[in-house]
Amino acid sequence: MRQEVKGAALRQLSEGGPAALSLNAIAKELGVSGPALYRYFASRDALLTELILDAYADLALALEGAPPTLADHAAAYRAWALAEPHRYRLLFSAPLPGYDPHDQSLVAAAHRAMTSLLTVTEPHSPVPGPLAAQLSTWSGAEPAVALHAVTAWSRLHGFVTLEIEGNYASMGLDPDELFRTFDL
Amino acid sequence: MRQEVKGAALRQLSEGGPAALSLNAIAKELGVSGPALYRYFASRDALLTELILDAYADLALALEGAPPTLADHAAAYRAWALAEPHRYRLLFSAPLPGYDPHDQSLVAAAHRAMTSLLTVTEPHSPVPGPLAAQLSTWSGAEPAVALHAVTAWSRLHGFVTLEIEGNYASMGLDPDELFRTFDL
Repeated sequence: MRQEVKGAALRQLSEGGPAALSLNAIAKELGVSGPALYRYFASRDALLTELILDAYADLALALEGAPPTLADHAAAYRAWALAEPHRYRLLFSAPLPGYDPHDQSLVAAAHRAMTSLLTVTEPHSPVPGPLAAQLSTWSGAEPAVALHAVTAWSRLHGFVTLEIEGNYASMGLDPDELFRTFDL
Repeated sequence: MRQEVKGAALRQLSEGGPAALSLNAIAKELGVSGPALYRYFASRDALLTELILDAYADLALALEGAPPTLADHAAAYRAWALAEPHRYRLLFSAPLPGYDPHDQSLVAAAHRAMTSLLTVTEPHSPVPGPLAAQLSTWSGAEPAVALHAVTAWSRLHGFVTLEIEGNYASMGLDPDELFRTFDL
C-alpha cells in the first residue's frame, strides 16, 4: 500500500508539480478512505518528505554505480535528472511554501548523495582557512577534495537545472554538445 | 494601478511562491472589483509574465551597471538574486505547471540579461563545430566567447540557486567564502 501511494504521488508530481500532491485525490484514486491513507502518511508534507528521501537515495545509487571518475559521475547525475526531472526538482529546494527542506533527515540523505562525488574529485586549491574547517566538518574528507566536490556539484546543478527546464533548447543550443565542453 | 497590482503580486510571491498569486486576492487587497483588475491583466499568467519580464529587465540593469569584468558581473548577478530570491526563482523555469517559460517575449528578455555577460567573458576554446554555429546564431558573438558566457551563467545559476535555497548553509558552509573560490 505504501508503494502504491507513493506511485500515485509520483504521477501527480510529474503531471502538476508539488502543488498537485493531494492525499485526498490519492485516496480516491486507490479506492481507499482518507483515514486509511493517513495511517501510512500523516500529512502531505510527510509524503513529500518520503518522496524526497527516495529521490536522494536513488540519485546516490546512480552515482555509486558509476565508474570512479568525475566525468562518469557527472554523466550519471545528469542522466538521472533528465530521466526523473519531476523528482530532481524536489531536491535542494523547498518544493512547497512552508516546507522545510533542511530537516536533518533530508540533509543526511543529501549528504549521502554527495559522498560519492568526494571519491572522484581531485583537490581544488588553495582553500582559505575558515572554509577549510567548514569543509572538513561537513565532509570528513580533505578540504581541498571537498571543495572540488562542492564546486563540481554546484556547476552540475546549474547545468542540469537549466537543461531540464528547457533553457538551452530555447536558446537553440544542443545540451549534449554543451555538456561535453562543460568543465567541472 | 498597474504598479499597485504588481506590488501586491510581488508581496504574494515573496510570501507563498507563484502558487499564491491570485488576481481575486489582489482585487480584494486593493479594494477594486475583479473586472476592474482584469482590465489591467487578463489572467494570472499574464500578470506572471509581466513579473518575469520585469525581473529579467532588472537583472539586466544590475549586470549592465556592473564594472566590465566577469567577476564584477558575477557578483552583481549573485547580489541581485540574494536580494530578490522570490523574483530570481521565476527566471529560467516554469514557475507554475502549464506555464510556458519559453514564450518568445521571455526568451528575448532572458537574452538581453545574458548579453551583458558576453561583453566580459574571455574565449573558451575549443568549440566543437555544430555548437559553434548554434552559439553564433544565438549570440551574434564569437562562438568561443559565447560558450564561456553560457558556461559562466550555468555555473553561476547553480551556485546562486543552491545559495538562495539555503543548501550551503545547511552544510555548514559560508557562501561568501565559497563564492570567492568559485571559478566561472
